[in-house]
Amino acid sequence: MSYYVALDVGGSKVLGALFDAKGKIIATKKVKTFAARGTDFVYQQIKLVIDTLLEGRKKVKGIGVIVPGIVLNHDYVEFCPNVPFDHFPLGMLLREEYAMPVALGNDVSLAVYGEWKSYDRPVDHAVGLFVGTGVGGGLILDRKLYTGQGGGGELGHMVLVAHGAGCGCGNEGCLEAYAGKAGLLRRLKAAQTRGRESLLYDYLKSDGSMITSEAFRTCYEAGDELALELIDQASYYLGLAVANFINMLHPELFIFGGGIMESLHPVMLPRIKQVAKNNAMPALGTNLEFSMSRLGDNAGIVGSFYQIYEMVNHA
Amino acid sequence: MSYYVALDVGGSKVLGALFDAKGKIIATKKVKTFAARGTDFVYQQIKLVIDTLLEGRKKVKGIGVIVPGIVLNHDYVEFCPNVPFDHFPLGMLLREEYAMPVALGNDVSLAVYGEWKSYDRPVDHAVGLFVGTGVGGGLILDRKLYTGQGGGGELGHMVLVAHGAGCGCGNEGCLEAYAGKAGLLRRLKAAQTRGRESLLYDYLKSDGSMITSEAFRTCYEAGDELALELIDQASYYLGLAVANFINMLHPELFIFGGGIMESLHPVMLPRIKQVAKNNAMPALGTNLEFSMSRLGDNAGIVGSFYQIYEMVNHA
Repeated sequence: MSYYVALDVGGSKVLGALFDAKGKIIATKKVKTFAARGTDFVYQQIKLVIDTLLEGRKKVKGIGVIVPGIVLNHDYVEFCPNVPFDHFPLGMLLREEYAMPVALGNDVSLAVYGEWKSYDRPVDHAVGLFVGTGVGGGLILDRKLYTGQGGGGELGHMVLVAHGAGCGCGNEGCLEAYAGKAGLLRRLKAAQTRGRESLLYDYLKSDGSMITSEAFRTCYEAGDELALELIDQASYYLGLAVANFINMLHPELFIFGGGIMESLHPVMLPRIKQVAKNNAMPALGTNLEFSMSRLGDNAGIVGSFYQIYEMVNHA
Repeated sequence: MSYYVALDVGGSKVLGALFDAKGKIIATKKVKTFAARGTDFVYQQIKLVIDTLLEGRKKVKGIGVIVPGIVLNHDYVEFCPNVPFDHFPLGMLLREEYAMPVALGNDVSLAVYGEWKSYDRPVDHAVGLFVGTGVGGGLILDRKLYTGQGGGGELGHMVLVAHGAGCGCGNEGCLEAYAGKAGLLRRLKAAQTRGRESLLYDYLKSDGSMITSEAFRTCYEAGDELALELIDQASYYLGLAVANFINMLHPELFIFGGGIMESLHPVMLPRIKQVAKNNAMPALGTNLEFSMSRLGDNAGIVGSFYQIYEMVNHA
C-alpha cells in the first residue's frame, strides 16, 4: 500500500499525520510552530514533522500541507498573518526537498473539503464556515473544492456592514469582525472601557489578550447580558452571511465548525437558521441542511490528505 | 445544418431568435409580453414567437428560454415577479408542445454566460453584474455557468447593509436597493419628499413611476448634487459587492451590463474599481479585469442558445 503525509501548520503548532491510501491515519507527530522565530525556523519544524512521519517508509507518494493563509496555485503562500510565510514558495521548497508531489491549501478550505469528503450522502454544493479566532471558509461547488484563482473562500471577509466594525484584516464591517473570537474580544473590551458590567471580564487572560470560547458559553448560560448580546449579534451576522450565500450560490449544505460554534452551536445554530430564512430569497431558502463539523481538529489534515491523494492519482 | 431557437421573455417584450449551429442569428421575432393578461396569455405569446421562428424548418434541435426570475433544474420557473410565471412548469409544457429538448434559465445568468462564451480570451472564473431596473448576476466558475441547486446567481440580493434600504425583494440592505434603477428611484422620490432640489425630478415620468438611465447621466453631467450622490453611492455599493466576490470567489474577470452601467460606466467603473481595491484582501486584488458587456441586448439569447446547444450536443 502507498502512503501520504498531511500537515496542518497553525500559528501555535504543526500537526502532521501519515495516511494510508484509504484515508486512515497510521501515525501522527506534533511540534510547536515557534512562529516568532521566523520563516527558516518554522520551515525546519515542518521538515522535522515530515521526516519523523517518513522515517523508514519507502512508499510515501505525496505531501499535503495546509496553512492559515492565502495559497495560490496549490503551491505558493501569498499571505499568512499568523505564520511567517508571506510570499513564501513553500510548495516548491518541499517538492525539491522530498522529491515528491506536494499540494498546499488554505486550512479552513481543506477542513471543509475533509468534512465534505466524509459526509454521509452525496452533496453537490456546500458552504463551510469555521468560526474560531477568525472566520474561515470553504466552498464545495459542483462537487469540487472551489478556490477561483487560488485564494477564493475567504468567507469571513464578506463585508456585511458598510463602514462597520474594524476587522483584523484591516477592513471594516467584515463578518469576522462580528462573529470571530478576536472581534468579540474587541467589542468586549470596548464595553469594559465604557464601564458596562459583565461576567466575561473575569475570564479574560490577565493581559486581556485572549478569552476562550467556553467562557462565552459559561457567561451566556449564566444569562450575562453582554454575552447574550455579543453571541446574538454574532449569530445574526452569520445568518445574514448564510442568506447571502443562499442567494448567490444556492447550495444544499452549510457546515459549521471552529471553537465558537463548537461551544455555542446549541444557541447559535437555531438563530443562524432563523436569520438566514428571514433574509434569503424565499424561492431559494428551501432544501437546505445545516450541519456541525464531524471531524473536529482532524478535518484539515483529512482534507489535505484527499487533496494530495487526488493530485497524485488524478482522481 | 441544424438550428436552435432562443427566447428572452421579459416583462414588456418576448424576443426570439433562430440560431444556426455556429451561433449566428438567422431570424428574429419580437412581440409584446402583455404580462398583465396572465399566465395563459403570455404562454401563447411565447408560442407565437417560437411558431414564427420554426415555420417551415425541419432541423430545429432545441429551444432555450430565459426569464427574469428563479429557475430550478433548467426547467421550472419557481419565482418570476414581472412575468406571471411563478411556480410554472414552462420547460415541461414547451417540451411536450414541441417534442424537442428545452432549457430554461435566468435572463441575467445566461446573459453573463453569453458574454463569457463570446469573450476574446479563455477565462476560468467570471462574475457578471447587470445593473438595470434591478441588479441581476451570473457566475462562471471553473469554466461553467454556476447555479447551485438551480437558482444561484441572485447577486443583486447580497445584503451589504444590515437593516438598510428597502429592496424590491422585500428584504433590506440588498445591493439592488442601492444600485438598481428602482432603488435609485425610491431614494430620489424620498429626497423630493424632503424638499431637496434636483434636476432629476424633471425627468420623472408624469406618474413618478419611472426614470431613464439616460436621465441620471444627463443630470450627473450637469453636476446635479443629488444625481452625483446617488450614482456615487450606487458605485460604492457595487464596489463593495465586487470586493466581497473577490474575497469569496477570487475570479479573474468582472463583466458589467444593464442600462445604468451602459449609461454611466465612464464615471461608475473607475469608482467601482477603486472601492473594490480598497475593500478586497490585498493578496486577492491583483490580476483582475473589469469589462463592459459587448453583446448588449443580445447577450441573454446568445447565452440561451449556448445552453440549449450544449444540452443537445452534450458539449
